[in-house]
Amino acid sequence: MPVPPTPHLRVDPVRLRRNVRRAADRAAAAGVLLRPHAKTYKCLEVARLQLAGGAAGLTVATVGEAEVLVRAGVRDLFLAYPVWVDDDRADRLRALAEHARVAIGVDSVMGAANSGRRLGGSGVEVLVEIDSGHHRTGVAPADAGEVAAAAARAGLPVRGAFTFPGHSYSPDAPGAAAVAEREALLAARLSMEAAGVPVHVLSGGSTPSLAASLDAALGGSSGGSLGAPPGASGPGDAGADDPGLARVQWEQRPGVYVFNDAQQWELGTCEPGDVALTARATVVSHASGRLVLDSGSKVLGADRAPWATGWGRLLERPDARIVQLSEHHAVVEMEGVLPRVGTQVDVVPNHVCNAVNLADALWADEHGGLHRWPVAARGLNG
Amino acid sequence: MPVPPTPHLRVDPVRLRRNVRRAADRAAAAGVLLRPHAKTYKCLEVARLQLAGGAAGLTVATVGEAEVLVRAGVRDLFLAYPVWVDDDRADRLRALAEHARVAIGVDSVMGAANSGRRLGGSGVEVLVEIDSGHHRTGVAPADAGEVAAAAARAGLPVRGAFTFPGHSYSPDAPGAAAVAEREALLAARLSMEAAGVPVHVLSGGSTPSLAASLDAALGGSSGGSLGAPPGASGPGDAGADDPGLARVQWEQRPGVYVFNDAQQWELGTCEPGDVALTARATVVSHASGRLVLDSGSKVLGADRAPWATGWGRLLERPDARIVQLSEHHAVVEMEGVLPRVGTQVDVVPNHVCNAVNLADALWADEHGGLHRWPVAARGLNG
Repeated sequence: MPVPPTPHLRVDPVRLRRNVRRAADRAAAAGVLLRPHAKTYKCLEVARLQLAGGAAGLTVATVGEAEVLVRAGVRDLFLAYPVWVDDDRADRLRALAEHARVAIGVDSVMGAANSGRRLGGSGVEVLVEIDSGHHRTGVAPADAGEVAAAAARAGLPVRGAFTFPGHSYSPDAPGAAAVAEREALLAARLSMEAAGVPVHVLSGGSTPSLAASLDAALGGSSGGSLGAPPGASGPGDAGADDPGLARVQWEQRPGVYVFNDAQQWELGTCEPGDVALTARATVVSHASGRLVLDSGSKVLGADRAPWATGWGRLLERPDARIVQLSEHHAVVEMEGVLPRVGTQVDVVPNHVCNAVNLADALWADEHGGLHRWPVAARGLNG
Repeated sequence: MPVPPTPHLRVDPVRLRRNVRRAADRAAAAGVLLRPHAKTYKCLEVARLQLAGGAAGLTVATVGEAEVLVRAGVRDLFLAYPVWVDDDRADRLRALAEHARVAIGVDSVMGAANSGRRLGGSGVEVLVEIDSGHHRTGVAPADAGEVAAAAARAGLPVRGAFTFPGHSYSPDAPGAAAVAEREALLAARLSMEAAGVPVHVLSGGSTPSLAASLDAALGGSSGGSLGAPPGASGPGDAGADDPGLARVQWEQRPGVYVFNDAQQWELGTCEPGDVALTARATVVSHASGRLVLDSGSKVLGADRAPWATGWGRLLERPDARIVQLSEHHAVVEMEGVLPRVGTQVDVVPNHVCNAVNLADALWADEHGGLHRWPVAARGLNG
């Protein structure tokens, strides 16, 4: 393939495969199913790596992503979102369920009733979304039973409960978020079983909290698939003496871990040597004595958490910070001699999921050449 | 056409045409050429409206955008960027120059020499980029002559100087940015003419500063194409007595004005009734008593200026604020009764250029139906 113009996204397949294998091995050792989130990469080459590496299935955020993956032969998908099932989505989900095991999220009695009315008899299952501290969607764990019962009444098979512990995205927060995730899921199970709805799967997961969640699963019981996180109190401890819990399958749905990004680097979830995707950029100016790159927000995305040190990092220059970002410019402050105008550098986006969704293709750098991996589900956000 | 699933971008063609016409009329009255920036819309339907409405040509940010427009018949393009001309871009720019009048930016002696070596004899012209206060790319106005002379020595026709007064993007800043733009361009002209390089065009423009820049052009002289901003001192006043200045053509390159967005709304550059593009979103949850929409950062973009009140606005609910944004969720705080789960609302993105670049198509809502306008240059950022 010809080399694409800058800016473009490059993948290091050696690092990618190592990231996939490490998580798969740790999840297997902990007896936890891994159902990675495909919204991070939207790309069949990565989905196949994960499934070959032992992933139980994949997670998606939209019906459009699910359609791309089912067409490519994926047979087990969880749409981890409280999707509002209108006529169009009902038709599309029913069509998907003819070819694959499909589950969706639900986080209200009204949503459960609507989904049941539109999807009853299709085989589409549901998981109740609970809020474990991120305060985005999801009901309180104690209300999970009410939603689950509404779904069951509406004719939908209930698989279990899920949460996204997104409050793990802050320095020093991942460990506490993993504990909160586990306690909230255990509390949701109690609520659902009290409402007469059996729980088969408890599903959590974010890249920052993944290691702590797997450690907790490993430390808690003989089978590694249940038990309290070491040292935790509350519902987790109560669960350790509950024989029914041995039949519950724990699941994790991390996304970013396959590539990592500047957020994971700055949270300490990965080392720079684990970053498997970068934006290749050209130095276009030294205006005002600073480095200006052509990798702007239309390639990196404009994500910037309050704790981030800039709008992205330079892979080979840990001292450098992107201090100003516009659509086609990244202004960098760094020590020492600036790379020459016209040279190329590798930029680590803050949030890789949004960077990938801006690109039509990723360029895998292997065997001395660049190989085009289409971002097959790019922009399929509905 | 079938109605696309939410979230998707909708255009109000009546407002769009009014925005295009108003700016064209004001620029014509001021004797200023309008060369709108196509990076905002990347879409042939809007380009044709602007050109039919009297635009002198179009501005682009990348060679990829230029290629799409030239293929569609556009014959006058300015790539307002200090593009680094490597082998690939040299071939592509030479090919474009066979079909259209093409100019590029340059902001260093080294860049001028490189562009001259690669593009000499192609007919590609250059404008020297100067920094009028945004501190991104561009040389100091007093250094414009040195860069212009280098370009001329390297065999490149020099058209003039340009700047992007991006510091207009702040409350109360647009007027001062327009003054700074004009003074910097006039100072650049003096520097270039002192270096023996005649100046034909002085080009500025941003949507927030557009009205003030056109007012200044109107107020300054009989022809409306020159003169100082009313009440300004400095190089502008000096120019008023300069007969050579009458031969200089002023130009403005606004982008956002065609659609407007939440940034323009909050800066006071437009009224809500001037917003011509929104993201149609579905209410998916009332978790924690707040409205949650499916229009996340993969549709709106993640732009948020320090002075913005949130990650976007609701067109029909000025009291509402998007207080939390992730890839597929916009969490809204608002007064009163929340719109029901399952209903649809129109969200105004903070920065329309990045929202458009996330979509494969815009949906124009006219004559009782939706018409698909492909975002023809989507993702063509290299």
